[in-house]
Amino acid sequence: MKTRAAVAFAPKQPLEIVELDLQGPQPGEVLVEIMATGVCHTDAYTLDGLDNEGLFPSILGHEGAGIVREVGTGVTSVKPGDHVIPLYTPECRQCKSCLSGKTNLCTAIRATQGKGLMPDGTSRFSYKGQTIYHYMGCSTFSNFTVLPDIAVAKIRTDAPFETSCYIGCGVTTGVGAVTNTANVKAGDSVIVFGLGGIGLNVIQAARLVGAGQIVGVDINDDKRDWGARFGMTDFVNPKRVDGNLVEHLVALTDGGADFTFDATGNTTVMRDALEACHRGWGVSVVIGVAEAGKEISTRPFQLVTGRVWKGTAFGGVKGRTGVPKIVDWYMNGKIEIDPMITHTMGLEDINKAFDLMHAGESIRSVIVY
Amino acid sequence: MKTRAAVAFAPKQPLEIVELDLQGPQPGEVLVEIMATGVCHTDAYTLDGLDNEGLFPSILGHEGAGIVREVGTGVTSVKPGDHVIPLYTPECRQCKSCLSGKTNLCTAIRATQGKGLMPDGTSRFSYKGQTIYHYMGCSTFSNFTVLPDIAVAKIRTDAPFETSCYIGCGVTTGVGAVTNTANVKAGDSVIVFGLGGIGLNVIQAARLVGAGQIVGVDINDDKRDWGARFGMTDFVNPKRVDGNLVEHLVALTDGGADFTFDATGNTTVMRDALEACHRGWGVSVVIGVAEAGKEISTRPFQLVTGRVWKGTAFGGVKGRTGVPKIVDWYMNGKIEIDPMITHTMGLEDINKAFDLMHAGESIRSVIVY
Repeated sequence: MKTRAAVAFAPKQPLEIVELDLQGPQPGEVLVEIMATGVCHTDAYTLDGLDNEGLFPSILGHEGAGIVREVGTGVTSVKPGDHVIPLYTPECRQCKSCLSGKTNLCTAIRATQGKGLMPDGTSRFSYKGQTIYHYMGCSTFSNFTVLPDIAVAKIRTDAPFETSCYIGCGVTTGVGAVTNTANVKAGDSVIVFGLGGIGLNVIQAARLVGAGQIVGVDINDDKRDWGARFGMTDFVNPKRVDGNLVEHLVALTDGGADFTFDATGNTTVMRDALEACHRGWGVSVVIGVAEAGKEISTRPFQLVTGRVWKGTAFGGVKGRTGVPKIVDWYMNGKIEIDPMITHTMGLEDINKAFDLMHAGESIRSVIVY
Repeated sequence: MKTRAAVAFAPKQPLEIVELDLQGPQPGEVLVEIMATGVCHTDAYTLDGLDNEGLFPSILGHEGAGIVREVGTGVTSVKPGDHVIPLYTPECRQCKSCLSGKTNLCTAIRATQGKGLMPDGTSRFSYKGQTIYHYMGCSTFSNFTVLPDIAVAKIRTDAPFETSCYIGCGVTTGVGAVTNTANVKAGDSVIVFGLGGIGLNVIQAARLVGAGQIVGVDINDDKRDWGARFGMTDFVNPKRVDGNLVEHLVALTDGGADFTFDATGNTTVMRDALEACHRGWGVSVVIGVAEAGKEISTRPFQLVTGRVWKGTAFGGVKGRTGVPKIVDWYMNGKIEIDPMITHTMGLEDINKAFDLMHAGESIRSVIVY
């Protein structure tokens, strides 16, 4: 079949809207009509050539929502007409990781997904006979895409596509970091570094679980109102702090925060986040994706005196099990998404979405097909 | 009163055995006759001038066992005749840290202890009118010493001093790292880097809790028999590994260990320990004290893919509550100490204990008064 898609033919080049050839779903696969997709920093990271493992030509996009249109043989978990969110972190429920009960990092299709291919080692996309790679197992910048059935979460049919697509990455990453990875409890203090989309979702999840103090840190004063909108209690602009930022934050939180979150991807900020944790029990969670080759450092004394350094991917959420619950939270008003979708546009304007992101003028842009 | 003690008059100099003046216990303090004390790497670290905050002249030693001989006014937790282990990590049961239920790092007397002084800001030790500093709040290289009552753990009277003194630091640090900080469970896999006294105690604690695979890593082949003696199942000498050590360990443990422990103090080893953890859930615990100024580093990817970096001090054990239990474990045969005490000697030979340690010829030397 044919599908309209935005193709990344090469790094650092605008996406091109073309008609592609799409092979239908093979055994264990599903064809999904993508109805809406967010444009995430990780797409930009790859398009900007910062990801050493980025493949071209490819169809980016990993934050979508859509409708199953066809299933391959053997697929029983979803059927045509089901509403789904594609999962870049699948959930096979069979591998060592899935069965461990300790991680969401399913390894069933990791090797082929990392190579831009379906589990059988081939791509479903081609253009004029040339293979086009899948991206993060999702490729939601195509109106139709094919995924393994273990990589779609079935969601309720009353959830709007143009907002619930954001649950495919940003919302789940930020909310899950708080509710799953960190397991923040009522009354705990929280510091969030970076008030982009992920940071705002950390803030609203901290509010959801009843955190006490919720400190937002950003070098852009415009983010104060954004943070306050979702439950932030204190705002700190590092540029306006006299002296040492970590000392300032430790004083502000009476000895350091119970939990800190890096949502910047900056390794220097990651260190600040760890060191702004409370001695004895503070936990710092790395969410942001760092530039290739960058490393985090600290004195081991920081750990020996009780701080814990951990990270999260997709908020520690098992996709097929956890994503439908987060959709419920959204539909029940426990979390907000609508005000974070600052721009919507058609696929033909997708390069504008990248421009808005690079200019810091969007929280989230969503493409509606 | 007078007491015989080994004084560190200056860094990098042998200790000198002298008769000191010791002021009796002030309110809230206890006088303890030290019956035996281990000589620990941390004493050597300070004596060798590697600790920026080391104070001289001082009386080192922090791994003792003894008998309460006199108590100051207001002391109700112990009485003369009680057998006790001095605690460099006290347990006041009143401070924010003690009350948190989340850490053993009591802060009640941290400021004065760090300055080599009792909580009232003075020292009990002097020599020819000159102040001699306390060390880690313990100063067990003195036959008699004075401690705050919150800094002694009362233990059963049938425990031999010359072995149970080791519970004052090394045993509790290694055992608690496993049972408290990491909370290793039956069947878990464990890698221990560095098979000195701490590492051997990690091994025997892993055996105690029923760990499955227990891998010991040391550059000294002589440590193979030592590790096996306490429950090690696999030995790896990095010098004999072809290729990358971390990859070798990950393969040996089927994807990485559930828990790894650094008992070397080497920051490069700390990184290896983190990276030899299993993707998704592995936890690495820093036990060793690093050289001043040294930092640990890794790619944040290691954390984002589910590894956790933490540390431990005194094994995460609350001294007054937990140390008597570890003494019970020793007396009941759950853990062994006797074979680790490779040398005993009188105070007059204490410099030999440091020489044996530096030469790698002892697991633990104990001074018996």
